[in-house]
Amino acid sequence: MSREKVIIQDVGPRDGLQNQPKILTPQQRVHIVRALMAAGVEHIQVGSFVSPKAVPAMAGAAEIVSELQGQPGQFSVLVPNVKGYELAIEAGARIIEMVVYGSEGFSQANAHMSRAQSEAACMEILDRSVEDDVRIITTISTSFDCPFDGVVEPAVVEALTARLLERGSSVVVVADTIGSADPARVRKLMNRLVGDHGPDHLCCHFHDTRAMGLANVFASLESGVRRFDASVAGVGGCPFAPGASGNVATEDVVMMLEQMGFDTGIDQRGLMEASQLVAELTENASGGRAAPWLRQMLEASS
Amino acid sequence: MSREKVIIQDVGPRDGLQNQPKILTPQQRVHIVRALMAAGVEHIQVGSFVSPKAVPAMAGAAEIVSELQGQPGQFSVLVPNVKGYELAIEAGARIIEMVVYGSEGFSQANAHMSRAQSEAACMEILDRSVEDDVRIITTISTSFDCPFDGVVEPAVVEALTARLLERGSSVVVVADTIGSADPARVRKLMNRLVGDHGPDHLCCHFHDTRAMGLANVFASLESGVRRFDASVAGVGGCPFAPGASGNVATEDVVMMLEQMGFDTGIDQRGLMEASQLVAELTENASGGRAAPWLRQMLEASS
Repeated sequence: MSREKVIIQDVGPRDGLQNQPKILTPQQRVHIVRALMAAGVEHIQVGSFVSPKAVPAMAGAAEIVSELQGQPGQFSVLVPNVKGYELAIEAGARIIEMVVYGSEGFSQANAHMSRAQSEAACMEILDRSVEDDVRIITTISTSFDCPFDGVVEPAVVEALTARLLERGSSVVVVADTIGSADPARVRKLMNRLVGDHGPDHLCCHFHDTRAMGLANVFASLESGVRRFDASVAGVGGCPFAPGASGNVATEDVVMMLEQMGFDTGIDQRGLMEASQLVAELTENASGGRAAPWLRQMLEASS
Repeated sequence: MSREKVIIQDVGPRDGLQNQPKILTPQQRVHIVRALMAAGVEHIQVGSFVSPKAVPAMAGAAEIVSELQGQPGQFSVLVPNVKGYELAIEAGARIIEMVVYGSEGFSQANAHMSRAQSEAACMEILDRSVEDDVRIITTISTSFDCPFDGVVEPAVVEALTARLLERGSSVVVVADTIGSADPARVRKLMNRLVGDHGPDHLCCHFHDTRAMGLANVFASLESGVRRFDASVAGVGGCPFAPGASGNVATEDVVMMLEQMGFDTGIDQRGLMEASQLVAELTENASGGRAAPWLRQMLEASS
């Protein structure tokens, strides 16, 4: 019997590295991407076309895209606005990520735009992506709670998801940006979204601030979600989101999924090597919550 | 609308403290029990009537039971055999815990008896408990995997659960002794057990070795389970179970349940104080996985 596939997009090289103190060179980030590829990670968020002045850790995105040209893999880059989109296209990017917001406060803090402006920019890019023949992944940031405005109503996220999918977003990522969601809320929201749209164009993105990352992954799996963002070595956090800690670690998610019989296509030993590389380069990576057990298990089986 | 109740039995003073290097005095253990009571924890496993030579950390169980006599709470003690049962009854214990085994290898290693002998001892105690008018809680150790024999067939656990409930066990605890279970397996097994027996006499007991403790709690909640063992400060492990780490922390479980709208009756601030006491006394307690967030949250709201 063939195992059911789950897609893991590793957002460590962008979302993770952007949010930790040590700044890596583009070449170091390419090394991490290559280590992930060697472990079988096919979907990787490799960089961001933001101003290097605003986010020095992401400088050199064009160089990274160029280095990865023609390599087998689904490499995405984040863009903050139409200008970033144009730079990304020029650099040869084929999968573009945009962020929209479940809450006004977080849109202002993170993007210095209103929620409506963020959405309008995203819609413009979605329209342009058709003739540019690139795929768009849209993340709904603060899909559960906003550090400034509090609870985000599920109806807001539901309506936004519907508009984005209708306008041609290839994937909509429901993001628990500050890591506050619990599995009951996740289950409820994802039940509705999967019920309305099916699972093929949905993704979940969890942070592990309250240690409920894996519980939330399981809850959304139960709702039918088959695509997740995760971050190698658990790197991440968000400087603009008080109390947020790292993304749920790719190692933890892959371990749980593979043990439950899903096929992630990712080799756990190779992933641990990529994680080790991230830990060495950043000097600031947890390696995920199951790391002690994973190391012991892999040593025992080597 | 009244919130749905979930019972948390804190097994820290027994299962937790038995399995960490520093030996506490009976009075220190009573202090921990009182700190848990002050936090609203009603169900507490307070000691074990095993040979103090075999398990020095549990010496003085009679003293602990006597100290707690007449106090409000559901205090249980573990007994390894009929002799331990008699000592517990003599000391005035009213809730007795027994262990039976899903696997032969672990029964031999832990109890120096065959699975059948462990079950026979338990059945004899169940019969005697009727005239002694005490309640019996039975834990099925290695309900998922055995460190020696590998996978435990769900049918074994199902049949054992049925026999124990039929013979009058007030609660049957399905225990993932080595912390190897994943939420998909938990869901499958607990679906069947709750389907067959209802939730009132079932409990789940998870270790957090692979960081899936909270995911497993959520999975069993989804199956209808409304009672869990957990260990304050995440103390625990098992010297005879290679690779096992601590029990899922009471702090983590209470945080998740309360956030999801369940009523545990436990005050998170008081629980953190009990956890702090355990950390100070044992010098060896993780405080659970969500501890950094919980501390920050409680400070912010004080």
